[in-house]
Amino acid sequence: MIQHATLTESDIDLSEELRAAMAAGDAERLDAFFDRLSLSEALRELLELPSDDRRTVLTLISPDIAAGLIEEAPHEVGANLMEDLETDRAVEIMDELDSDVQADLIGDMESEEAEAILGQMDAEDAADVRRMSEYEDDTAGGLMMSEVFECADTMTVSDVIKVLAKDDDDVDRYRGQHPYIIDETGKLVGVVSLRGLLATKRTARLTTIMVEPMSVQADATLSDLEDIFDKYAFLGVPVVDADGGMLGVVSRDAVSQALLERAESENLKLQGVVGDELRTMPTWLRSRRRLAWLSANIVLNMIAASVISAYEETLVAVIAIAVFLPMVSDMSGCSGNQAVGVTMRELSLGLVRPKDAFKVWLKEISVGVINGIALGILIGIVAWVWKGSPALGLVIGAALALNTMLAVSIGGVVPLVLKRIGQDPAVASGPLLTTVTDMAGFFFVLSLATVMMPWLVLR
Amino acid sequence: MIQHATLTESDIDLSEELRAAMAAGDAERLDAFFDRLSLSEALRELLELPSDDRRTVLTLISPDIAAGLIEEAPHEVGANLMEDLETDRAVEIMDELDSDVQADLIGDMESEEAEAILGQMDAEDAADVRRMSEYEDDTAGGLMMSEVFECADTMTVSDVIKVLAKDDDDVDRYRGQHPYIIDETGKLVGVVSLRGLLATKRTARLTTIMVEPMSVQADATLSDLEDIFDKYAFLGVPVVDADGGMLGVVSRDAVSQALLERAESENLKLQGVVGDELRTMPTWLRSRRRLAWLSANIVLNMIAASVISAYEETLVAVIAIAVFLPMVSDMSGCSGNQAVGVTMRELSLGLVRPKDAFKVWLKEISVGVINGIALGILIGIVAWVWKGSPALGLVIGAALALNTMLAVSIGGVVPLVLKRIGQDPAVASGPLLTTVTDMAGFFFVLSLATVMMPWLVLR
Repeated sequence: MIQHATLTESDIDLSEELRAAMAAGDAERLDAFFDRLSLSEALRELLELPSDDRRTVLTLISPDIAAGLIEEAPHEVGANLMEDLETDRAVEIMDELDSDVQADLIGDMESEEAEAILGQMDAEDAADVRRMSEYEDDTAGGLMMSEVFECADTMTVSDVIKVLAKDDDDVDRYRGQHPYIIDETGKLVGVVSLRGLLATKRTARLTTIMVEPMSVQADATLSDLEDIFDKYAFLGVPVVDADGGMLGVVSRDAVSQALLERAESENLKLQGVVGDELRTMPTWLRSRRRLAWLSANIVLNMIAASVISAYEETLVAVIAIAVFLPMVSDMSGCSGNQAVGVTMRELSLGLVRPKDAFKVWLKEISVGVINGIALGILIGIVAWVWKGSPALGLVIGAALALNTMLAVSIGGVVPLVLKRIGQDPAVASGPLLTTVTDMAGFFFVLSLATVMMPWLVLR
Repeated sequence: MIQHATLTESDIDLSEELRAAMAAGDAERLDAFFDRLSLSEALRELLELPSDDRRTVLTLISPDIAAGLIEEAPHEVGANLMEDLETDRAVEIMDELDSDVQADLIGDMESEEAEAILGQMDAEDAADVRRMSEYEDDTAGGLMMSEVFECADTMTVSDVIKVLAKDDDDVDRYRGQHPYIIDETGKLVGVVSLRGLLATKRTARLTTIMVEPMSVQADATLSDLEDIFDKYAFLGVPVVDADGGMLGVVSRDAVSQALLERAESENLKLQGVVGDELRTMPTWLRSRRRLAWLSANIVLNMIAASVISAYEETLVAVIAIAVFLPMVSDMSGCSGNQAVGVTMRELSLGLVRPKDAFKVWLKEISVGVINGIALGILIGIVAWVWKGSPALGLVIGAALALNTMLAVSIGGVVPLVLKRIGQDPAVASGPLLTTVTDMAGFFFVLSLATVMMPWLVLR
């Protein structure tokens, strides 16, 4: 029995072996090297090489191993690796990939390289890829593959069983699809279950055992597809045009993959990284992408900080406040981020919709009142004891309490509002939240302090 | 052809229909109501009800619809819903679920309710669930189901085809598994492909067409399983004990689901929500969980803010600095969070490991130097122009540049260090990062200002 073994060799052995095999130009040794590793380990070893060496390796190893590595890489990285290859070689690797992956890669490549590859591919495959790369990414059209287990409505059970029993590449590419029955005009008319095939005599026409298939249009969203696969145990769902003509099949696996990628990219965006980033990308590119987001943020930060500027007199009079300004804004920022997190999660689970903003606000403010008062009392006591001024404690505590309530309201509702107006909540929620909670935090502390000045300076 | 239709009715109609059906105690009408919705919509409608009504609904509707709702809910929510039901009813719903879901639910329930349910379940099923809920969550043992398409090594092709063609529940539960061949001692000895079944004559013994199966031990991690399903097109992988005895099967789908849940829970933790939270949970519970994290944070914030306290004299002398203190710490916090995001992503893709900390740092500091200098110059010019003091610009700019380099170093490396020492990087990276960047940011600004004092106060 083959047990899946995790790697025990040290890294040094690994990269030495890789470099040695590469230096020797030994394709077989390279194949053996990558074959032994898991795809993520293999990809890591590949990406750790300088870019010239990556090209050498991808040119030497067998096309199907190369295809596995390209598919394992995040889309943009995979497209870059392909762009760097000679066109002939890129086409060889392309031929090993499923049409949905081909379309993703072509869509992510520079148009010149993409055209060069399409020009050398099999004309029919290239036409499929061109057609498929037109569809939006996270729709049924963008996720489907064109390798469909199509059977003419004139076929019998025995015909299908012959196809299934054939030991060739095409059948592997169907990935466990059920046979879809297509009429002479290309319309999807039925689907046949494995049980149907096995329990019926071999001479029966497929049309006698087929059932009505569920199908989606090419513009069905990722969430629609998630709903279908949640509810039904299908491994794939056919995609049809407005007239019921068969376009392709979306597999359960493609949907799972897209959902995972969406969650991971949201994660990255919430942390302020817009667009893909791996550390193996060029420094200037990583730097530029991060800077784009940071420099927008610096402007928002200035707006918030200008509130402090307006109260410099108060600050000079009660300098102890300076210690608590960042605490109040940071803490409310944290409370607000928690609310953003819960809303993003509920959005992705489909448990709230943009129009539920008011309901969400009610739920948030009830937590905000409790936590605001609790944290306000806590920080108020700290300020009182630390600086020996009960009035200061009151100012800081009240400011944090108020600002926490504001922060959870903004944090809970802003992602829904952004979604409603067609903006990406993962990118914009954080900066908006921080700006508002900073401004309001500074304002609450400093304006309360100004009002309380007589008691504050007497201490 | 059945097209998947998205719902067009208004919410009001929906919840009115639900309330009416519930008030009438009309089980069929409730079934029809939920059947028409997607599982996420149905769950949303259910969770929007007060908890008494949730129980009423789950008691009235058909057990398989109830099971679908329980399975769709996040684990903890599903377990709570089950706990609220009468034991008889909970058992009925339990019977509709796959064993892996059963084990998850039982593991998440209070032990008293869990025991009550297990006591009334079929003894063999209950034993399976008990055994399975012993395993760690994200391991092969925790993810496997005990419904296995087992065939004795004495069976023929025709025997298997008869099982497959049978129209009963058991076969549905195999979810497209291939037949696994077990010897008389319960050891897994082979697996048979569909093609093998179809291309061989029906009288052949399975042992003549079986191939060696890949298998994992019960303690294989989620990442191990991800590696296997990435590399091979299997729909399931068998789990065996140390002697090769068959324990269960992990499906590709269970692994996809676990990966998605992990990404979403990381997302939540990075935003400061530890443990599950949906807004339909009780306010006090949500409040308490969020507070636990926030109050740890308030202590860290105090440590950072104490740096300001030490430099109050400098601040009074050059009060304009107070405007820039939060800007410097916020901006470096943002830079650091970007680095945290990229490291978390690379960790989840398996592209970095804890021991790669130094490599990661080199990659981060190169971006940190570029972005630190760029942002430093930007904020320096802002400070100079705004407050009319080139010395102030120099202090603020230099502080932000230095602190950005520190922040990306901490942000990039801290998740790896936390992982290495067995802590959860998603929970602790953010607070640690913020504390250090706040402290260091305040220190850089204020100590530089103290040194530059003669030029700063002359303005």
